[in-house]
Amino acid sequence: MIGIGVIGYGYWGPQIVRNFHSLSGARVRVVCDKEPEVLKRAKLAYNDVEVTTDLSEALTSPQVDAVAVVTPVWTHFDLVKTALENGKHVFVEKPFTTASDQARRLIELAEKKNLRIMVDHTFLFTGAVKKIRQLIDNNELGNLYYYDSTRVNLGLFQHDVNVIWDLAPHDLSIMNHLIKDKPRAIVATGERHLNCQEDVAFITIYFEHNIIAHINVNWLSPVKVRTTLIGGEKRMVVWNDLAADEKVKVYDKGVQITNREGVYDLLVSYRSGDMWAPKVDQTEALKAVCEYFIACVQDNKQPFNDGQAGLEVVTMLEAADKSVRERGRIVEI
Amino acid sequence: MIGIGVIGYGYWGPQIVRNFHSLSGARVRVVCDKEPEVLKRAKLAYNDVEVTTDLSEALTSPQVDAVAVVTPVWTHFDLVKTALENGKHVFVEKPFTTASDQARRLIELAEKKNLRIMVDHTFLFTGAVKKIRQLIDNNELGNLYYYDSTRVNLGLFQHDVNVIWDLAPHDLSIMNHLIKDKPRAIVATGERHLNCQEDVAFITIYFEHNIIAHINVNWLSPVKVRTTLIGGEKRMVVWNDLAADEKVKVYDKGVQITNREGVYDLLVSYRSGDMWAPKVDQTEALKAVCEYFIACVQDNKQPFNDGQAGLEVVTMLEAADKSVRERGRIVEI
Amino acid sequence: MIGIGVIGYGYWGPQIVRNFHSLSGARVRVVCDKEPEVLKRAKLAYNDVEVTTDLSEALTSPQVDAVAVVTPVWTHFDLVKTALENGKHVFVEKPFTTASDQARRLIELAEKKNLRIMVDHTFLFTGAVKKIRQLIDNNELGNLYYYDSTRVNLGLFQHDVNVIWDLAPHDLSIMNHLIKDKPRAIVATGERHLNCQEDVAFITIYFEHNIIAHINVNWLSPVKVRTTLIGGEKRMVVWNDLAADEKVKVYDKGVQITNREGVYDLLVSYRSGDMWAPKVDQTEALKAVCEYFIACVQDNKQPFNDGQAGLEVVTMLEAADKSVRERGRIVEI
Amino acid sequence: MIGIGVIGYGYWGPQIVRNFHSLSGARVRVVCDKEPEVLKRAKLAYNDVEVTTDLSEALTSPQVDAVAVVTPVWTHFDLVKTALENGKHVFVEKPFTTASDQARRLIELAEKKNLRIMVDHTFLFTGAVKKIRQLIDNNELGNLYYYDSTRVNLGLFQHDVNVIWDLAPHDLSIMNHLIKDKPRAIVATGERHLNCQEDVAFITIYFEHNIIAHINVNWLSPVKVRTTLIGGEKRMVVWNDLAADEKVKVYDKGVQITNREGVYDLLVSYRSGDMWAPKVDQTEALKAVCEYFIACVQDNKQPFNDGQAGLEVVTMLEAADKSVRERGRIVEI
Repeated sequence: MIGIGVIGYGYWGPQIVRNFHSLSGARVRVVCDKEPEVLKRAKLAYNDVEVTTDLSEALTSPQVDAVAVVTPVWTHFDLVKTALENGKHVFVEKPFTTASDQARRLIELAEKKNLRIMVDHTFLFTGAVKKIRQLIDNNELGNLYYYDSTRVNLGLFQHDVNVIWDLAPHDLSIMNHLIKDKPRAIVATGERHLNCQEDVAFITIYFEHNIIAHINVNWLSPVKVRTTLIGGEKRMVVWNDLAADEKVKVYDKGVQITNREGVYDLLVSYRSGDMWAPKVDQTEALKAVCEYFIACVQDNKQPFNDGQAGLEVVTMLEAADKSVRERGRIVEI
Repeated sequence: MIGIGVIGYGYWGPQIVRNFHSLSGARVRVVCDKEPEVLKRAKLAYNDVEVTTDLSEALTSPQVDAVAVVTPVWTHFDLVKTALENGKHVFVEKPFTTASDQARRLIELAEKKNLRIMVDHTFLFTGAVKKIRQLIDNNELGNLYYYDSTRVNLGLFQHDVNVIWDLAPHDLSIMNHLIKDKPRAIVATGERHLNCQEDVAFITIYFEHNIIAHINVNWLSPVKVRTTLIGGEKRMVVWNDLAADEKVKVYDKGVQITNREGVYDLLVSYRSGDMWAPKVDQTEALKAVCEYFIACVQDNKQPFNDGQAGLEVVTMLEAADKSVRERGRIVEI
Repeated sequence: MIGIGVIGYGYWGPQIVRNFHSLSGARVRVVCDKEPEVLKRAKLAYNDVEVTTDLSEALTSPQVDAVAVVTPVWTHFDLVKTALENGKHVFVEKPFTTASDQARRLIELAEKKNLRIMVDHTFLFTGAVKKIRQLIDNNELGNLYYYDSTRVNLGLFQHDVNVIWDLAPHDLSIMNHLIKDKPRAIVATGERHLNCQEDVAFITIYFEHNIIAHINVNWLSPVKVRTTLIGGEKRMVVWNDLAADEKVKVYDKGVQITNREGVYDLLVSYRSGDMWAPKVDQTEALKAVCEYFIACVQDNKQPFNDGQAGLEVVTMLEAADKSVRERGRIVEI
Repeated sequence: MIGIGVIGYGYWGPQIVRNFHSLSGARVRVVCDKEPEVLKRAKLAYNDVEVTTDLSEALTSPQVDAVAVVTPVWTHFDLVKTALENGKHVFVEKPFTTASDQARRLIELAEKKNLRIMVDHTFLFTGAVKKIRQLIDNNELGNLYYYDSTRVNLGLFQHDVNVIWDLAPHDLSIMNHLIKDKPRAIVATGERHLNCQEDVAFITIYFEHNIIAHINVNWLSPVKVRTTLIGGEKRMVVWNDLAADEKVKVYDKGVQITNREGVYDLLVSYRSGDMWAPKVDQTEALKAVCEYFIACVQDNKQPFNDGQAGLEVVTMLEAADKSVRERGRIVEI
């Protein structure tokens, strides 16, 4: 039985508590938030859980084996560091930290203490991403050509981060999870219209080989779009996360170019076959994340969405930020 | 009655001939193509039109007042130049030329000879673009924030140009037509997968003020997309050119940020009202282009889609090409 | 403060309790269900509410002013009757009863006792239906031509009722609420495939004047559809209840037929203008129903969704059932 | 080489001429229409074809082996009869005739003369219908439950026929082609709003076994819909003929009901698997029809879309008309 202390009971905190609470291997011991009002709601919902405004109760209590950090990103470093120093495993919201050197220090500390860090890249546990990963692992798409994601909607403006730090962590973590090739450089462009944070941005990621990824994030779109195109040599995928059914469509389409001997002109041949929408697992992704965290802690196993995975995303966010500020200058990573 | 000589009867040529042929103010005198087979088809369809493989007949015949150049872009400069030198007005396919200095020389030549050049940016004459222009002219959108276009499909690969020169001229000409602010710099990224031309590219255009434009072009998409989002302070537009009806949707949505006196936090307020899909003119755009060309020639009037408009698009294509080759380096224009 | 007793805590019961529980004018006193397991869940969620398997506690307790009957339809008559006899107001799920004579007896009883009956036709309180009603009240659609609803999905098979009694009450109550003309006769067809209940059915309702309504209900559809077309002389409406946004679309389209003097042929002229998707209220409909019930009880006011409204729906369901059994014979109502 | 005489060059005639003209096995000899203006257009398009206002030229010329009747339905009987009497094979537009006895007499006459009649049920030659037929022939859907088609749009009002005769022939011929069971009775309802013809109608077809078919036709819909649901025991199909791609979707979904021994309650189990959109042939259906007609004439082969197939559709249209007039009375067929 893993005792859990949860810090932060704002928007996402209640989801985290609900899911850890439902697991037989975990027990939520304490919920900590700076707002007493918020804690009242937590207590009403979970009679058996202690609530407190005192951080140290969550970070140091002997009943707590693992701390879930569900607070704004700028607080992550201090909270995770203290938790690790007190011998607690850590479950932390994405993005992992506000800077890559912070992430590196936390990873090192966890290693030294033999503690687990898991970053909550929830999307990796959705049926859609698991299905696409499986298609790629089975080489059903062939060599990958590109990964192109659009993640736009109206608001919600964040005060402390720009649209890149708000929306792109999803895409970057998914991209990293799906594409085996290594991201090498980033070009990002964007603009500010309402305050001093970019509200529209476009990110290109170059890989070691000739895959290219692109992420379009926007807080000023009148319509909500969550669509990713993945082009492969053999097949292509369109993932529309807003579709009620048929979120993932696999197109048996392709292009081939052959150079006939002695012939100057390229011969381009198109192949267009069936479309197929595989059934995807509908289990709540966050429940799977929480279960996986408990399993990793219990079995002393390194999760795949560990500090290192979180660091890679933060590194790309940093690079994108730098590139935007320098109007699209390429930033190697 | 304006006599027309048409050079090129491949994919787009028959459309041009059909439309000029249907106008009372024009008469198609001669159709020129290097393939005799192709000319046979032209003759069968238009008994009263002369067909020839001899360029000079179209370029010099006294019966021809204006030449329509409907050939690959790398032939434009020579053909347009010869036509102008022979005193012919010119109607030329987009993109205008392969290089901006060519475009400048042709504009200069036309001015000296007092001849018209019209570049066939057909989209500017569609009901959708006319309606959006009208919304902007009437200030229904308020200050513009961004212009974001996605133009992707499977193929058709071109041998002589990359995906930018193939697909982006549409977006660049529409963007220029709609946005009064001046484009100042371009950042473009992209990748080659099948031959030595980029088949996927992402273009950001910075403007003098804080509008930002973005164009996503792709020859390797399993699905066809033709969608443009235009964000304004007062209203926002989604234009889906593939929709059978309701191509243009106007959203009465917006975001406002106010800084209350003495209050540190920004107050973001969202406004979400009705959506409205204005009826758009369904007339064939190409017919309107041809009519407008005849009217400009007859009335000795400078068209708005003139050589200068064509030059501006070519300048941006050049800049995008340069930026892609240098992995996203910003190119001022 | 109105004391509420809720009978039935299965699928819909928890929604009813949650909503009455949230109202300042109501207090949920007791929840009754025959399953002790189910009551445990109720108690966990609402500490302050008494739970019981004993019907009489809900039906006779002096703390209970009004009884919400959230049980299968075949139990409604007895429960509502007992509640009324004990001087309780009644909130009852749709359909009101299994037979029209039952409904008539309950209405009579409530009148004699001066008690309120409200039938939970929740859809009448959705933003979409309220908006369409408003369009009709303002004569924006002109004379109505037809009402055509499709309500199909896979399952959920009911054991005690056929697809008509399961799905059509929604459409019939909405139709009655929107159309001022009186339904006069019903023709229904359908078929059974899996058990002894119709799983597919098509219902036509003739009105006093030349409006016609049609309802397509199906438990065996691979896709879920909730779409209603309403044709009017001046404008037409498409209501897609599954759309995330733009549920209600108003088309400025129409047809006119004129008979020119002395001319035999009819002249048909089509009008096709803008489409407009008015913003609709997003408040939870069930909350509004519950609030309205409390207000009607407090103010001794007859709700519009009263026993009479429930009776009219039951009468049409009875007629549809009879018609289906006699393979489409018209049944006057 | 089969000589073709075409009667009628209005809306559909030019399509028929274009297709027969393109076939190597056929030669269009004469086009007949009562409007000289219309014939001028035909002559312009097809220099080598004779045009005439004289019916007898098309019906009796020794150069004509087969007559294509592309005129309003009320003229079909006389024209087809005369053509057959003159020893010509007949290609005739749908619906075959205005009455079933006419159809029977024509079939008899053609048999006596050993001539072919083909009714132009074009939809049977589309890639979508061919694919669905193949799915059914391969028993991929299992036993069929229902066939439910919606075919609605704004206009075009016909003067001589109601919406049933205008739109339902498509559905009835497709339904007959796909479903092996025999239609036995029809219930139809509908209403007139603008003139003396029904403009909205709903048709139920009962079959010998427990398949049920339903057709919703409407000239007063603000949106165009062409969607057919086909429910089978093993799989279900949604055919959206307006979709640019993925017109046919096959859902691996189903419902099973089992009666456990000694258990009263039915056990309903739902199965929900992948969706699959098979590639469908994109060839122009009308071209395939014309080719097939030529082949049947040349090889003295009875087409499957023969007079008998046409008669079956006319019989159902007659029955539907009768049922509508008697407000849904069931009409056996």
